[in-house]
Amino acid sequence: MRLATLPDGPDGRLVVVEDGSARAIACRTMLAWLDGGDAALGPEEDWQPEQAMACLPRAWQFLDGSAYVNHVALVRQARGAEMPERFWHDPLMYQGLNLFTGPRDPIPSAPDWGTDLEAEVAVLTGPVPRGATPDEAARAIRAICLLNDISLRGLIPDELGKGFGFVHSKPASALSPLAVTPDALPYDGRLHATVHVEVNGTKLGETRAGEDMTFDFPTLVAHAAKTRDLPAGTVIGSGTVSNRDPDGGPGRPVDAGGRGYSCLAEQRMVETILDGQARSPWLRPGDRVRIWAEADGHDLFGVIEQEVIEWHKLD
Amino acid sequence: MRLATLPDGPDGRLVVVEDGSARAIACRTMLAWLDGGDAALGPEEDWQPEQAMACLPRAWQFLDGSAYVNHVALVRQARGAEMPERFWHDPLMYQGLNLFTGPRDPIPSAPDWGTDLEAEVAVLTGPVPRGATPDEAARAIRAICLLNDISLRGLIPDELGKGFGFVHSKPASALSPLAVTPDALPYDGRLHATVHVEVNGTKLGETRAGEDMTFDFPTLVAHAAKTRDLPAGTVIGSGTVSNRDPDGGPGRPVDAGGRGYSCLAEQRMVETILDGQARSPWLRPGDRVRIWAEADGHDLFGVIEQEVIEWHKLD
Repeated sequence: MRLATLPDGPDGRLVVVEDGSARAIACRTMLAWLDGGDAALGPEEDWQPEQAMACLPRAWQFLDGSAYVNHVALVRQARGAEMPERFWHDPLMYQGLNLFTGPRDPIPSAPDWGTDLEAEVAVLTGPVPRGATPDEAARAIRAICLLNDISLRGLIPDELGKGFGFVHSKPASALSPLAVTPDALPYDGRLHATVHVEVNGTKLGETRAGEDMTFDFPTLVAHAAKTRDLPAGTVIGSGTVSNRDPDGGPGRPVDAGGRGYSCLAEQRMVETILDGQARSPWLRPGDRVRIWAEADGHDLFGVIEQEVIEWHKLD
Repeated sequence: MRLATLPDGPDGRLVVVEDGSARAIACRTMLAWLDGGDAALGPEEDWQPEQAMACLPRAWQFLDGSAYVNHVALVRQARGAEMPERFWHDPLMYQGLNLFTGPRDPIPSAPDWGTDLEAEVAVLTGPVPRGATPDEAARAIRAICLLNDISLRGLIPDELGKGFGFVHSKPASALSPLAVTPDALPYDGRLHATVHVEVNGTKLGETRAGEDMTFDFPTLVAHAAKTRDLPAGTVIGSGTVSNRDPDGGPGRPVDAGGRGYSCLAEQRMVETILDGQARSPWLRPGDRVRIWAEADGHDLFGVIEQEVIEWHKLD
């Protein structure tokens, strides 16, 4: 089942999308559906993908993992820091902002923010009790989508230096138009799909989400639930999708035959490791980002397509 | 105006409390009232304080500051670390869990969690646009309450060592029964009230929330809004209320004539600084915590009164 949220108040109106048409769901919102609400379908109506809001505009919680440990290792390598060995068996996760922009909403930016994208896969859950096992967590994963975790790299070092995680440096992320139930996807705890990223029409990445994901989604959800109940309407992110090069080194750019990157930071890290300095700039006003995922040539979640805008011109 | 939320679904039912009776509000929930909903009052009904849920059971966002920099300095001093000078002019803040337990709900615990309370003051806001000034932020502060920021000290060093802030170590906090509009409080950006904390009937703290608060609430709210819009239904916490001793040193215990502490960690830090080791244990199953605030001998927000329970006995 492919689900989208159409504009209708802050939580929108949930529809099931099939072959160019849509049908409303009795329980009305994605939040209610995730909580086991009535999924009876209404009559067919038009489906205009470009009207979609985030598939879940307001979640009750967003916890973002770093399941592609290769990405974390590259970040550390580029700044000359060691990565703790425990990161290979103890997931890194932060509490993020649980309010999401639409897939076509602008990305606010300012000159010193160092604005970056991060293409991620995310799962939307029903209720998960505290202390759930990965098996229990797996059964609570009700839908999967794409997420663009906007990251303000210019603000991150200063903020992480304070030791309490991200606030300024992680404003609202965007979610894809569609969230899809696991049974309708090549999914076995990992999503076996290619995540495509373009910046200004040039391919930045075509990474495989099912490879190099050290922790699968049930493990991430169970990690999130260690000391708290997760309510229906929780979003758990995978962290930036990242693949190693087949030779074990950092991945090569797409135009050099590699799979490229799901964020500019990783591209810049690889430039730093290979050439001693980063050449690629952060996102600037007017830049356009496109993120989508494919399996067997089929688009899975619709397209996240955002333009970067100087933030005080937004209003 | 004094507002409370009575049980009625996950967001409850908002009432105005006056002299032993209550009156329902047309817009029904605290979330809707914070968003400028219809505040027309219904007929008088009974008011049973012990029935109250958290004054805002589900917020859209919780950002917790550390405005009492004295507390932060003590934490660092106890572990032999320097506190960066910038903490005196750049607020420390983390993204916390925005779902709150009721004032009488149990505190889940496990033997290795090192469970602690933290008595804080918090403000509930209407919408705050990105980039708001402190003056603009001040006008968006619609109500004030108490918050018990449950902190699992046994899990904090390991989690902060990973560099991405708190997840496991900060489960759901509790909010007081009442939230009160600023005009009905001794409030000028800081709350001029005494915060009382008892553990098992023994006074732990009677700190003054209006003193030693380096950053006032409008400054904290503006800090939170630097790169994001804050929706109506945002909670901004003060961090643990903490006073210095008049001689400039760490505060003395209540039974030694001081104002004591708003968390066990601070008591243990002072023990460590004075005696070389902490004597006071963390909270254990069966322990009872009471937190309330007074000004001019009047109770302001009702009582947070929680019992610690071994977590897997909760269900």
